Amino acid sequence: MSSVIIPVILSGGAGTRLWPMSRPARPKQFLPLMGERTMFAETLARTSEADGFGAPVIVANARHRDLIAEDLARPDATIILEPAARNTAPAIALAALSAEPSAALLVMPSDHVIADVAAFHAAIAAGLPLAEQGWLVTFGITPTGPETGYGYIKCGARQAEGAFAVERFIEKPEAAVAESMLAEGGHAWNGGIFLFRADAYLAALEAHAPAILAAAKASVDAATRDGNVLLPDSASFEASPSDSIDYAVMERAEKVAVVPVSMGWSDIGSWDSLHETRAKDSDGNVIAGTAVAIDTKGCLIEADGIQVATLGVEDLIVIASEGKVLIMPRGTSQRVREIVTAVGK
Amino acid sequence: MSSVIIPVILSGGAGTRLWPMSRPARPKQFLPLMGERTMFAETLARTSEADGFGAPVIVANARHRDLIAEDLARPDATIILEPAARNTAPAIALAALSAEPSAALLVMPSDHVIADVAAFHAAIAAGLPLAEQGWLVTFGITPTGPETGYGYIKCGARQAEGAFAVERFIEKPEAAVAESMLAEGGHAWNGGIFLFRADAYLAALEAHAPAILAAAKASVDAATRDGNVLLPDSASFEASPSDSIDYAVMERAEKVAVVPVSMGWSDIGSWDSLHETRAKDSDGNVIAGTAVAIDTKGCLIEADGIQVATLGVEDLIVIASEGKVLIMPRGTSQRVREIVTAVGK
Repeated sequence: MSSVIIPVILSGGAGTRLWPMSRPARPKQFLPLMGERTMFAETLARTSEADGFGAPVIVANARHRDLIAEDLARPDATIILEPAARNTAPAIALAALSAEPSAALLVMPSDHVIADVAAFHAAIAAGLPLAEQGWLVTFGITPTGPETGYGYIKCGARQAEGAFAVERFIEKPEAAVAESMLAEGGHAWNGGIFLFRADAYLAALEAHAPAILAAAKASVDAATRDGNVLLPDSASFEASPSDSIDYAVMERAEKVAVVPVSMGWSDIGSWDSLHETRAKDSDGNVIAGTAVAIDTKGCLIEADGIQVATLGVEDLIVIASEGKVLIMPRGTSQRVREIVTAVGK
Repeated sequence: MSSVIIPVILSGGAGTRLWPMSRPARPKQFLPLMGERTMFAETLARTSEADGFGAPVIVANARHRDLIAEDLARPDATIILEPAARNTAPAIALAALSAEPSAALLVMPSDHVIADVAAFHAAIAAGLPLAEQGWLVTFGITPTGPETGYGYIKCGARQAEGAFAVERFIEKPEAAVAESMLAEGGHAWNGGIFLFRADAYLAALEAHAPAILAAAKASVDAATRDGNVLLPDSASFEASPSDSIDYAVMERAEKVAVVPVSMGWSDIGSWDSLHETRAKDSDGNVIAGTAVAIDTKGCLIEADGIQVATLGVEDLIVIASEGKVLIMPRGTSQRVREIVTAVGK
């Protein structure tokens, strides 16, 4: 690689899809869902423990400053605290404006699982030459099934070894459409991981979402600093439109490339996907924490601070945390929001 | 009635069949399982709120002294704190020795449900003449099914209106035996509620279990008093054999009568029996406490201090209390002890 890559870790999420364990004060990225370390720490480690990467930039919600400090053993990191949630396009603009214009930024959500880090690094290496030529590179996850919960990317003309121009982005599809894309081949899931030069991203913003760029610029120009923490100006940033990088930039820009990769990726978007992703015991259970499970099969049990005891149950999701217990059948965890609505976060 | 009846309430139980809600420090009788009041308070009210009954005598475990004080709005009550658990025969001996010899004692467990209190009072009235003549009277619960978890009583010759000599006691039967007793008729469940003169009980003890009588006598003779609390001597009481009134006295004595009664009785011996006993909502659920139940049917949910949220589940028992959550299918709650063994009380 000709230059170091700057990892940009987006920690803006405050979802409730993993209620009651995830919640606004401690969203998914700060939970140790896959082992000892939090998802945020795992994300950091994917680049910190490898050569070719520079000091990371974290873009995060101000209320999670302490959680980040707990996990971040990198005094050289830059932490940008978003004054408000404006989705990913403005958040990435803050990072791009704080970097050298020619720096290659590897933009990653802080709450995804990547089991095969070597494959991830190989994909980054495949995308870097295009990124250095000014392409906006996205990583396309090789589908493992006709998922309807993800956006898809159709690969176009080959641009380099393992890298293709994006022919088009496809919104979360109906099941039949997902099936046909799988059958046709040449489609990948949009995993929300990107590689581009800072100046290329800012140029694309200027062309396709100038209001976002203007707000981010004004906010960074009036920013204050507290050690390695950058505090962009609130009023300017709040004036930004709220939009995702996909809608604001990737789907509109010219030189957009995709590097397909199979790397054991999951966004752990639900309790069901956590059960799918984690190793099971001989009864098909995934059990973490203080749980006793007798004659229990196919269950996901997470017990944090509450003693859970199950007997004679099958295919249940049982999540006990923070004085709350969720009980629902496996396969229905997308309905968690109905419970959050009824209970409150 | 020719004289007042002394209610004797036995509060010795420390079972774990309703784990995690019942536990040694707060057994079943101190839980409000059927409504606002604890089972103990309900038991007290059955006689306190009616004519013909004198000041109650409570025989209880010393560690529950404060729980009893919370529930007991009767300054005239006598509280006898058992120095040790020696089953019901010695416990009742302490009460009988503290009463007038001619007093009629109505001995009741503190943790049973009696829905039809008028029927209970009618049965007491039916048994009282026999008790005054020196009979040991037990109340026989009219069976509602071929239960194998209760002892049975076979009714013999009629002795008075609604009262029969006991022909024999039958241990908890096999299912086929229970079926045949139901088909035959003339059998009742042994509900553990008794009516007899204090001197009649003590005479039967002397005849059939003299070591129990001697130990209880020595213990009461050396007792200390603290207001209305009687503290029998520990060493003497601990020397007593441990035995139930059924084995030690009722199954051996001569003049033993049974008054059959149908009074909505349950000993709430399991979570399943609580679900059976309680009123259900239109989805067949019994839900108490802080619970949100969406698309939930046929469940028993008790949430005490923990927020329970269920979605899409059926026929589950979910008990959340004291930082513990039990989850098991309805119909299996007799297996709770397997969990208690695994988790610890």
